[in-house]
Amino acid sequence: TFAHCLDYDDTHVGATAHLSAPVWSAALAVGQQAGAEGRDMTAAFIAGFESAARLGNGIGGVANLRGWHSTGIFGALGAAVAASVLLKLDEDGIARALGAAATQAGGLTGSFGTHAKPFHAGKAAMSGVLAAELAAAGFEASETLLEAEGGLGSALVQDGAAAIGAVDFDDGWELLRNTVKPYAACLLTHPVIDAARSLAPKAAGRTAERVEVRVNPAAIRLAGKPDPQTPLEGKFSLAFCTALGLSGRRAMEGDFTAGTLADPALRATLACVEPVAEPGRDTRSAALEVRWLDGATDRRETAMALGNPGNPLSRADLEAKFRSLAEPALGNAAEALSALAWDFDAPGRAGELHNLLAA
Amino acid sequence: TFAHCLDYDDTHVGATAHLSAPVWSAALAVGQQAGAEGRDMTAAFIAGFESAARLGNGIGGVANLRGWHSTGIFGALGAAVAASVLLKLDEDGIARALGAAATQAGGLTGSFGTHAKPFHAGKAAMSGVLAAELAAAGFEASETLLEAEGGLGSALVQDGAAAIGAVDFDDGWELLRNTVKPYAACLLTHPVIDAARSLAPKAAGRTAERVEVRVNPAAIRLAGKPDPQTPLEGKFSLAFCTALGLSGRRAMEGDFTAGTLADPALRATLACVEPVAEPGRDTRSAALEVRWLDGATDRRETAMALGNPGNPLSRADLEAKFRSLAEPALGNAAEALSALAWDFDAPGRAGELHNLLAA
Repeated sequence: TFAHCLDYDDTHVGATAHLSAPVWSAALAVGQQAGAEGRDMTAAFIAGFESAARLGNGIGGVANLRGWHSTGIFGALGAAVAASVLLKLDEDGIARALGAAATQAGGLTGSFGTHAKPFHAGKAAMSGVLAAELAAAGFEASETLLEAEGGLGSALVQDGAAAIGAVDFDDGWELLRNTVKPYAACLLTHPVIDAARSLAPKAAGRTAERVEVRVNPAAIRLAGKPDPQTPLEGKFSLAFCTALGLSGRRAMEGDFTAGTLADPALRATLACVEPVAEPGRDTRSAALEVRWLDGATDRRETAMALGNPGNPLSRADLEAKFRSLAEPALGNAAEALSALAWDFDAPGRAGELHNLLAA
Repeated sequence: TFAHCLDYDDTHVGATAHLSAPVWSAALAVGQQAGAEGRDMTAAFIAGFESAARLGNGIGGVANLRGWHSTGIFGALGAAVAASVLLKLDEDGIARALGAAATQAGGLTGSFGTHAKPFHAGKAAMSGVLAAELAAAGFEASETLLEAEGGLGSALVQDGAAAIGAVDFDDGWELLRNTVKPYAACLLTHPVIDAARSLAPKAAGRTAERVEVRVNPAAIRLAGKPDPQTPLEGKFSLAFCTALGLSGRRAMEGDFTAGTLADPALRATLACVEPVAEPGRDTRSAALEVRWLDGATDRRETAMALGNPGNPLSRADLEAKFRSLAEPALGNAAEALSALAWDFDAPGRAGELHNLLAA
């Protein structure tokens, strides 16, 4: 639940779902109880993630449109697989765990905007763990719910516009097709922030007169707040995000505060941002053109926003994101936790994680 | 889960759901934890049942056809209301609990025939209790999921063939519209068993030559096994159920055993049962005509099977059913438990129940 509560966790675009939150939660909880090593937990997470992403590919986004939150649905399946691996279930056991998870899956998109949305991720982890524990105890569940004619896909998308397809594990890693948000804002603002940040060195000491932002129309519809008043509104404001980027800020969680929203320099830049809708433009791309008060003009184009497959975050980007979130809660321990996570498949790491978080 | 595992619990026909199992489970669990009296638990159960039945009226059966198990869905809502009442939530709290329960609701009809079907009732109780506890802790959930245009109804039945209607609490008690199975067999066999049992006195010492059973075609399709070999098949055999009734047995759980299935007298009667399909006949009615070896003929018509609204079980019927199920598990304590249950709203009963079951 907490991993998804800022809506800042990773997104698998094919399944339109936030899978790491429920799957890692299950892997860590069951792994700790089973006394597993970090390496085993990582393997279980990968198995769960790869399964959930493949089961959700194509149907996840359509299920969302029909009212079922893909994260709750496919997250539960991934959590069940991860938990099953750590409980060392055999093929039959994993099939029964998947059946028990499928029949517990839920989460309504009508809950978006409430505490219940991130709770779907936490509940998915819980249901997946329960499914694996039941299967380990001999629980009999349907093993055909995930088949093409099975019960889950046709209940989620009743007009047959999408279905759960056959799963192919030989077509590469879904984890590499996972999107990680570098910025603590709506995903649709990300290509604009990339472009603005790349212009920050040129913006130092100068004043913008006009900032034209060319984006897919969806970005303006969903993230086009021209005059944001709260941190949450700031995350859905192309104008404010542009101002943050030009100022050289990283657009991390700590950059969306009452203080930054009231900052006179940021508000001055914000006021001269003009979004332009370009139908057909890839939502992960944007163009930004700044005319400075001194008459000069600069232009930047983002072809593929940072964090998407093909333009992944660097280790430094990931560490910066991690620190921005973990340090306010953990202080100095955040640094140790980061080092531990990079090396989580080395022997003894699971115990160190437990000790670190218990301290 | 256990209350629904024999498929022998009560059914609310309007919502096509088994509501008592999840709602009582929640009321007893939360009530015990809160130190509530039996009277309070009963009131909470009634509030939960009445709410769930009304929310499920009309849409429950259609949701089943679309793949969502109404017991899991509306059971969770009823459990949330019962738990909320015992946690003394106010109107806003109950609305948030209902939102949290709706967004957890699930259960696939594709799981029927496995352990997962009764588990839907148990999981519904668990989700409902969790929803109420979250609401008590300040959890914010959507309060419009149950509205006509809300998220639950349209996700369950996506073509709009049914919806969650406005709830009217002034139209009598849904509990009185609840069906309680007197017999441990498929509901479609019940009117036939009624008729056969009423002929048992005439059957004593005689042998049937031909037994004609006139029923709705669904009874033959779903419960027409002509030559049952297992206790479960016996429960779906009009012929075996007819033989049980004519023999004077009550068709309780203990009447469906390897022993009764092999009984020569029962098998002889079974062999001369001839079901006749009558399209348009009410599924809760049946006609039975026996021609005896001595040439005489007897006929009985069941207009409304025992256990349905309008023909409820007597206290003796209910006690017989209770004893048939509880005595094999509890022995002599079953009698005390029965007395306690009839008088559950008297002071001190909750504590006595706890002591009795802990002993």
